Amino acid sequence: MRMVDVIIKKRNGLELSEEEIRFFVEGFTSGEIPSYQASSLAMAILFKGMNKKEIGILTDAMLHSGETIDLSSIEGIKVDKHSTGGVGDKTSLVLGPLVAACGVKLAKMSGRGLGHTGGTLDKLESIPGCKIGLSREEFINQVNKYGLAIVGQTGNLVPADKKLYALRDVTGTVESIPLIASSIMSKKLASGSDTILLDVKFGSGAFMKDIDQARLLARTMVDIGDHLHRDTRAILTDMDQPLGLAIGNSLEVIEAINTLNGKGPSDLVELCLGAGAIMLMQAKKTSSIEEGRKLLQEKIDNKEALEKLCDLVRAQGGDESYIRDPSKFEKAKYIIAIKAENEGYVKQINALEIGDSAMRLGAGRATYDDVIDPSSGIVLSKKVGDKVNVGDVLCTVYTNKEDNASILKDIHDSFKLSSDIVKINPIIYEVIK
Amino acid sequence: MRMVDVIIKKRNGLELSEEEIRFFVEGFTSGEIPSYQASSLAMAILFKGMNKKEIGILTDAMLHSGETIDLSSIEGIKVDKHSTGGVGDKTSLVLGPLVAACGVKLAKMSGRGLGHTGGTLDKLESIPGCKIGLSREEFINQVNKYGLAIVGQTGNLVPADKKLYALRDVTGTVESIPLIASSIMSKKLASGSDTILLDVKFGSGAFMKDIDQARLLARTMVDIGDHLHRDTRAILTDMDQPLGLAIGNSLEVIEAINTLNGKGPSDLVELCLGAGAIMLMQAKKTSSIEEGRKLLQEKIDNKEALEKLCDLVRAQGGDESYIRDPSKFEKAKYIIAIKAENEGYVKQINALEIGDSAMRLGAGRATYDDVIDPSSGIVLSKKVGDKVNVGDVLCTVYTNKEDNASILKDIHDSFKLSSDIVKINPIIYEVIK
Repeated sequence: MRMVDVIIKKRNGLELSEEEIRFFVEGFTSGEIPSYQASSLAMAILFKGMNKKEIGILTDAMLHSGETIDLSSIEGIKVDKHSTGGVGDKTSLVLGPLVAACGVKLAKMSGRGLGHTGGTLDKLESIPGCKIGLSREEFINQVNKYGLAIVGQTGNLVPADKKLYALRDVTGTVESIPLIASSIMSKKLASGSDTILLDVKFGSGAFMKDIDQARLLARTMVDIGDHLHRDTRAILTDMDQPLGLAIGNSLEVIEAINTLNGKGPSDLVELCLGAGAIMLMQAKKTSSIEEGRKLLQEKIDNKEALEKLCDLVRAQGGDESYIRDPSKFEKAKYIIAIKAENEGYVKQINALEIGDSAMRLGAGRATYDDVIDPSSGIVLSKKVGDKVNVGDVLCTVYTNKEDNASILKDIHDSFKLSSDIVKINPIIYEVIK
Repeated sequence: MRMVDVIIKKRNGLELSEEEIRFFVEGFTSGEIPSYQASSLAMAILFKGMNKKEIGILTDAMLHSGETIDLSSIEGIKVDKHSTGGVGDKTSLVLGPLVAACGVKLAKMSGRGLGHTGGTLDKLESIPGCKIGLSREEFINQVNKYGLAIVGQTGNLVPADKKLYALRDVTGTVESIPLIASSIMSKKLASGSDTILLDVKFGSGAFMKDIDQARLLARTMVDIGDHLHRDTRAILTDMDQPLGLAIGNSLEVIEAINTLNGKGPSDLVELCLGAGAIMLMQAKKTSSIEEGRKLLQEKIDNKEALEKLCDLVRAQGGDESYIRDPSKFEKAKYIIAIKAENEGYVKQINALEIGDSAMRLGAGRATYDDVIDPSSGIVLSKKVGDKVNVGDVLCTVYTNKEDNASILKDIHDSFKLSSDIVKINPIIYEVIK
């Protein structure tokens, strides 16, 4: 078999065989197929797509290109969730303790933030002492003991994806649904959980700007799960404005704590209850969404979920007193209120711009080598739909950067007002199964 | 400027700027831009195309990626021709001497054959002693003295194309009109002639299988010539059956000699007169096609063109006695007549199959390293439109290979007969200027 013939076949819009797809993935992983052929195939896939069967095979081939995690020594159904990334997305920090409090096991490998999006690992590390680098044994023991662990990737999982993603990133081939879907799903499947809930975000702060693309990505990933016999469901959620109020690492941890204390912003609460109820059904803990929502709400009300977060932090070496008293988190040097210059209803808070501004304040990375300032970020006082009068605080900026005038202006300008009342969209737009 | 942004721009169907195209060509030639980005851009160009302006800039950038040939020390207008390659295409060996006999200068760099297509250099080398590796000075002196030289490429012309073509060949990105056109034209323009006539072939034995693609390629190349102020014209010619009767190196040289002796097959004669008349007008030797055809016919009739071929062969170290007496050419060991098993009119002689069979007989190369057997090949006795009776000789096969039964069968099967009279297509289908 010659790689050039595989490329030409896909370029001509034909279906690749199982043999051809595995030939590519194995050859590329081992280095026998050079990058210039892989990038050319990736571009052909971007233009010509792949059908369900091809995507399933591609994912399976990538999944088996390296180690996979065996979670069989953890009792019960292991659930997992994955967000496609957004601004202010601290869902895992709330949802993990919530479902664990319901007796469900979450053995989660998470990622870091880049650009305008944040990462769960960076947020966890803003809690003094909290580590994300557990050994395989520590990871499994912790989940068995507390029902919950959130760590960085352990072991050589999906090397094909690592190599292919790095190549796609510099060859203009990131934006291909089959490639995105197989990349995400191969990693999730290699992590060994029994069920996967995908939070596919759409809107200005999401990778997928429009709902149709997000739906297609979600559908494609759910199909991969079906193909590989793993219970996979997806929700389409709004990322046109930041999720919740806080953007920035320790600020988001504080918001997660507040939420577990029953004082969360309504969109974040709704997302956690909606997503959590699906995960409880996947884990066969409950038999309806309503039942699940009720159970989750109880775990907030009786503080059992908050205790789970304390368990997680303590087990991973962190200082749980910060969870019990979030006022202990170090504050940024400059805390600046941004006020409205006009009146009206908030029509838009551009999540991409807010996320980008937060990054520039120190809360995120422009490149993988940048160091994060955990205390910096933005806390919104107004969300889409809110009425604003002149002089009202739109949001509060936290930063240690002195030279911040242009960032403050950009943050102010991310708020768009309207003279008419603005309709609020639901946070969970659609459930896909 | 980042190469990934250039790739994404083209992938999204946008026009690349002059700066972006030159950034790519220069960076790729120097090695600063890696192959995996170049192949990805090539695939994006294959899908999204390039407009006239982009193709002109791309060609110009490639043309200036290395040395160019300065022919200014040759007096008068220097003409050049290029064929996109076919089966039995010995046109240059007839046309070169013909236009030189009319006082026009042809300083031609030619190529070798690969696969089912033959190359002029291989044909010249089948004449004992004839060399194709002249120094720049010898090349120019010969054209000044005899009006004619046909040599291999001298110097480091268009390194960008060499590198890009080698990459396209293994990444499924050969079949892109902008890339084919800029590749051919950058080399022709770097060779320094004042005018270019492109013989763009279509049909089973041509790179372009259908006339519309051939027309688009021709139009694109003529536009490049206009863009870069070089008189460029094109003809679309039929390559559905082999050109003339002979396929194979010395067999084709003999046919070229016969043609210059006034005994050429009608399609080859018509192509040489038609193409030559255009070249004479490009050289401003004549003011109409009819005048040109008349002058060319005179040069056949009075043997001046044949003398030019003798001059060329002698000047390049060859034994001109072979030109004066082609019976001197060494014959293949096996000479086998292939006879018709049915009667009818020849509807098709598949040029790709005939070219491929000739290659297998020893007349061509499957890979660049193969050695050619100059005496092997095929001479047709019947062409499309001819009436055939059972037992008539369809063609004669020349080979030194003993184990040839399956090749002979394939050659026989390349002839398709019809019970109805078959219409003959003109050899020059269209002229494009």
